[in-house]
Amino acid sequence: MAGNSIGQLFKVTTFGESHGPAIGGIVDGCPPGMQLTAEDLQLDLDRRKPGTSRYTTARREEDQVKILSGVFEDTTTGASIGLLIENTDQRSQDYSNIKDLFRPGHADYTYWHKFGIRDYRGGGRSSARETAIRVAAGSIAKKYLKQHCGVEIRGYLAQLGPVKAEKLQWDEVANNPFFCPDPDKIAALDEYMRQLKKDGDSVGARVNVVATGMPVGLGEPVFDRLDADIAHAMMSINAVKAVEIGDGFEVVEQRGSTDRDELTPEGFSANHAGGTLGGISSGQDIRVSIALKPTSSISIPGKSINVNGEVVDIVTKGRHDPCVGIRAVPIAEAMLAIVLMDHLLRHRAQNAGVSVSTPDIARANR
Amino acid sequence: MAGNSIGQLFKVTTFGESHGPAIGGIVDGCPPGMQLTAEDLQLDLDRRKPGTSRYTTARREEDQVKILSGVFEDTTTGASIGLLIENTDQRSQDYSNIKDLFRPGHADYTYWHKFGIRDYRGGGRSSARETAIRVAAGSIAKKYLKQHCGVEIRGYLAQLGPVKAEKLQWDEVANNPFFCPDPDKIAALDEYMRQLKKDGDSVGARVNVVATGMPVGLGEPVFDRLDADIAHAMMSINAVKAVEIGDGFEVVEQRGSTDRDELTPEGFSANHAGGTLGGISSGQDIRVSIALKPTSSISIPGKSINVNGEVVDIVTKGRHDPCVGIRAVPIAEAMLAIVLMDHLLRHRAQNAGVSVSTPDIARANR
Amino acid sequence: MAGNSIGQLFKVTTFGESHGPAIGGIVDGCPPGMQLTAEDLQLDLDRRKPGTSRYTTARREEDQVKILSGVFEDTTTGASIGLLIENTDQRSQDYSNIKDLFRPGHADYTYWHKFGIRDYRGGGRSSARETAIRVAAGSIAKKYLKQHCGVEIRGYLAQLGPVKAEKLQWDEVANNPFFCPDPDKIAALDEYMRQLKKDGDSVGARVNVVATGMPVGLGEPVFDRLDADIAHAMMSINAVKAVEIGDGFEVVEQRGSTDRDELTPEGFSANHAGGTLGGISSGQDIRVSIALKPTSSISIPGKSINVNGEVVDIVTKGRHDPCVGIRAVPIAEAMLAIVLMDHLLRHRAQNAGVSVSTPDIARANR
Amino acid sequence: MAGNSIGQLFKVTTFGESHGPAIGGIVDGCPPGMQLTAEDLQLDLDRRKPGTSRYTTARREEDQVKILSGVFEDTTTGASIGLLIENTDQRSQDYSNIKDLFRPGHADYTYWHKFGIRDYRGGGRSSARETAIRVAAGSIAKKYLKQHCGVEIRGYLAQLGPVKAEKLQWDEVANNPFFCPDPDKIAALDEYMRQLKKDGDSVGARVNVVATGMPVGLGEPVFDRLDADIAHAMMSINAVKAVEIGDGFEVVEQRGSTDRDELTPEGFSANHAGGTLGGISSGQDIRVSIALKPTSSISIPGKSINVNGEVVDIVTKGRHDPCVGIRAVPIAEAMLAIVLMDHLLRHRAQNAGVSVSTPDIARANR
Repeated sequence: MAGNSIGQLFKVTTFGESHGPAIGGIVDGCPPGMQLTAEDLQLDLDRRKPGTSRYTTARREEDQVKILSGVFEDTTTGASIGLLIENTDQRSQDYSNIKDLFRPGHADYTYWHKFGIRDYRGGGRSSARETAIRVAAGSIAKKYLKQHCGVEIRGYLAQLGPVKAEKLQWDEVANNPFFCPDPDKIAALDEYMRQLKKDGDSVGARVNVVATGMPVGLGEPVFDRLDADIAHAMMSINAVKAVEIGDGFEVVEQRGSTDRDELTPEGFSANHAGGTLGGISSGQDIRVSIALKPTSSISIPGKSINVNGEVVDIVTKGRHDPCVGIRAVPIAEAMLAIVLMDHLLRHRAQNAGVSVSTPDIARANR
Repeated sequence: MAGNSIGQLFKVTTFGESHGPAIGGIVDGCPPGMQLTAEDLQLDLDRRKPGTSRYTTARREEDQVKILSGVFEDTTTGASIGLLIENTDQRSQDYSNIKDLFRPGHADYTYWHKFGIRDYRGGGRSSARETAIRVAAGSIAKKYLKQHCGVEIRGYLAQLGPVKAEKLQWDEVANNPFFCPDPDKIAALDEYMRQLKKDGDSVGARVNVVATGMPVGLGEPVFDRLDADIAHAMMSINAVKAVEIGDGFEVVEQRGSTDRDELTPEGFSANHAGGTLGGISSGQDIRVSIALKPTSSISIPGKSINVNGEVVDIVTKGRHDPCVGIRAVPIAEAMLAIVLMDHLLRHRAQNAGVSVSTPDIARANR
Repeated sequence: MAGNSIGQLFKVTTFGESHGPAIGGIVDGCPPGMQLTAEDLQLDLDRRKPGTSRYTTARREEDQVKILSGVFEDTTTGASIGLLIENTDQRSQDYSNIKDLFRPGHADYTYWHKFGIRDYRGGGRSSARETAIRVAAGSIAKKYLKQHCGVEIRGYLAQLGPVKAEKLQWDEVANNPFFCPDPDKIAALDEYMRQLKKDGDSVGARVNVVATGMPVGLGEPVFDRLDADIAHAMMSINAVKAVEIGDGFEVVEQRGSTDRDELTPEGFSANHAGGTLGGISSGQDIRVSIALKPTSSISIPGKSINVNGEVVDIVTKGRHDPCVGIRAVPIAEAMLAIVLMDHLLRHRAQNAGVSVSTPDIARANR
Repeated sequence: MAGNSIGQLFKVTTFGESHGPAIGGIVDGCPPGMQLTAEDLQLDLDRRKPGTSRYTTARREEDQVKILSGVFEDTTTGASIGLLIENTDQRSQDYSNIKDLFRPGHADYTYWHKFGIRDYRGGGRSSARETAIRVAAGSIAKKYLKQHCGVEIRGYLAQLGPVKAEKLQWDEVANNPFFCPDPDKIAALDEYMRQLKKDGDSVGARVNVVATGMPVGLGEPVFDRLDADIAHAMMSINAVKAVEIGDGFEVVEQRGSTDRDELTPEGFSANHAGGTLGGISSGQDIRVSIALKPTSSISIPGKSINVNGEVVDIVTKGRHDPCVGIRAVPIAEAMLAIVLMDHLLRHRAQNAGVSVSTPDIARANR
């Protein structure tokens, strides 16, 4: 069933396969009157782009996005925005050998059973290539949120296999190919990745995303809570297996006397909650953490079966990221931006008389 | 904005406040021809019902559900099913003292800022009382899934504060007031809860839910993945702060050579993935784990502010569960059932020619 | 599939059968802060109520609506509003004789084939009794539109069989049991209806609805045009077979030089369009006209078949309106109100910076 | 707000302006396994294409559609289908003179007030150029409906200004540039259009669409009736001002004894209803009729105002169809196909156990 859309008022719909002629999408519901050019989107796309370092796939895609509609004289008109990125470096012959195989850990088996047919080239629709359009759409949301609400969304790599970032220096994130905020861990990451490539293996990662400058009031009781929609958006990213808001799983062992964030005239005393109360933004920072599994596309041989149920050997020879979590940072930012944008519009719809503001108290502790 | 619905084809919409005359809901999209009576729903409602043990709130609600429509001669007709539960033991006077206060850790502050008005009695719409209707609706989904697909959904308390279940004995779950599957931990739970009440404090919990007998093929690329919709549904439960599918956050440190579940002619060799590949069910068990924060309604005094920004002391005197995670077990089961039911119908819509079946291979390893 | 909801931001979901214990609904998305009591809804419900004159069904229903949630201290809170009307005068034995028959012109045949089961008592879910909840929900929208935007929605009976209203005197509409705005036609209507009852037959009707005080800007390109959503809402009313906006079918023979409503500094020169241009409200009056077919529930015997395909005689003995179009007036008003309310909220979502106003020019010619 | 999508399970979303680089869309929810190539879509696109006769706009667009995704080896995969048509003959300079004017009868005034900005070139998003993507998407639905259900959808021009088709010869429709099914009226149409062009004026039209081979059971109570969704889809076509199902406005003067379509063992005795009962398809032909207003783009000078409220003269010099109703025939077919396809999938979702079939009785009288 139609499942290629996310958002209700700021709605993003995507299409495209890894090795088709192009990928694209439609952003429906962007408010009119915002300055917007393709360059705005390109900045984030370049951060996600493959082929930029030896730690990511060698596939080289320019990921040059075109805005086909919805923008007139560099200003959004309120009409739906058509986005298009042509695929330029697909090598479909790489994949003919897996035509009848089910690669373990991939969507081959489930797509084949669900649809009775699959575009096996590079994973087809299940490829993370699709996320390029999410990043482009997310850039539009990011720009609006920043300009019109002062909300800023930033992500970083919190952990890669055993290597954990211990410092959070935002300025550092763009200085290394890992999106790592801890300058003391770059060497360790470099070494770990070098060994990983040598092993022909892959590894998981944890990515954190934070929204600052949040207004109070985004999120809707009771099912469309802000945190519930964030969980949905994050878990819809390829390879994500877990989502936390605020303290996440740490709350299991917490007591109420610790966990509750007390309010003072100067602001909240802490932010265990991660920025939502009852599913509605409290004005504190939104703190999200996600886990990405190691890709199954590794050169270590494995066992599987083919469509006839026969045993086969699997060795992935394509060009793959040894840690897909790294390039997930701009994707996670984009998804958070899309959710916040959607809820900003939803809030405005019903609460025209109640301004979306950030009370001073909420500003105090983020 | 309208946020009180979940599901697209099996759609549940709820209404009702903690201390209003009644709570209720509409289940829209239930297939016709299923045997159904109010007793079917009552079984799960009784599991969630308050006042059944000294470990839960002393509020006594019969939670007697009425089916007002959509069922004719004990058979579903395909029409929308109206559900109603009258509130019988609300004591609104308990709450007049918090009328102008923002209880820390509660939705008081965010509702007040979002809507400019709040029904302060018992949390109003933000109360977990609303989840009774989720449980009733989930029972309908559970029954259909079991009868028509052989899917069974069961949950249990995996951890309460520091006490972890180490054995998984399904038969034990119904034998104790904690939904704990480990008979060796009942005494420890009992002791911990006794102390907790004495302390006037609360504690968090981890709840696991498992769906067995799964067909292959539920879930839609790319945003409406089965796991993404599960994450949304789980995070929409009051107090939930984290969701994992399969190995969850453990994947951060895993390598691809370990994490990928190899396929053999006899079935999957493992279930790290937790039952989905590419967001689509693989026929393996769906494994979900959630974290619930400790309730902020505790008798240990705390600080907060009132609507005028003045410092106030907070002591919760109402009747509350010291661990809301316990009663969350049937709620989490209900949410998983609603999501699976929705995706079963979604799958049927598009893939009428492709039967939803469980290949032998998938049955082998769950 | 789930089809019992209308609206996206102001969303109305209903349940209930003609002869079940109750009918009800949920209004989700009503802005907070509006004064609201059950009496507000009762005014319109009483206009639709059966048993008020000899020209409508003899079934006597008090149609006493209860507001179960979403309103606190007579003010909307932004939470979903639960509505309930108990059925009090159903006489199900009236219908046992049609259990296995397909009444011509009714939904018996299609429900039976679609669902494989039908609640045959009084048409079950297909009964116009369901529209009582639409009227209640529409009253909420009407009140908000009037208080917050100055929009007023009024309907009248434009034609009943051969009798056409020629004068439009709004004050007259409430003075007669036909909702007829032409005082000179009341006698003719009375005579026509008397004869119709004697004949045991029924007749069709045309109902017009007008919204005045419209702001400019409601409606969304390209599918969710205001007029498209109005057409949907009107055609969803039982027995409606046609919908016109503005000049409707007259445009077939019009020339562009006549049809285009020229703009002048003082306002539009005419309102052929009926208040929308490009699917968006122009500030002129919204003019809608609908056709309702004669009910098939008549005492003149007819032929049909039963579930076994055998020929049967049909004589309707229940209590029915000889012209269902009469009581459709408040229903049509309600549906227009729901659509306008939904689009008002939708407009606010995206165009927070663009006020919904009525330029002077638009006020000039309505 | 996001309004550029139609359908729930077979969902079509479009983007693009009249004079942007391209128009396009996404068809989400198409079942897998259907043979499909761009040529299938081109057949209908060529029927709608401008510049094919002297009776339509002189703008020459090849309207060559590309399928960018969702089809693998000429077979649908179940993934979203990306469609793209490049604009090749836009002449934006034609429009610079209307930059600050509101053309009467056009969306200029409402777009400007709603969005605070408008792409004035050729009407921008409000241009009927957008309907090319509807036609392409509708072709996919048409093909599926025909191959998998035996449903055929055909339209024709029933009336153009004063000239009415009196015969319905389906074979004739493709033989003349008017889609007229009455060979005896071609000369009159030709003459009327010649005079119309000479006058520099435009005229309205009535278009009828019929679906044959219908199954019983499509449509959902109570708001998402099949006829309600058809009304919505038809009214969403540019210039449409009225929609009828079956006898439409004729029912106003009908009596129930005439209007009710009696059932016999051999089938329905008539089809006044137009193929739906209670909003659900009865297996009889779906009969829809729509009215299209005359375009306001005429060369007869008119009066209007500019954005400053000053009086201006308007003479449309662009290339326009004197009767937009003619080319609306394939568009109306497309919209009906999209609605039926959506409801076919919706029916399958909930009623997997109830086959969508055409009972013999329904086949008998169409």
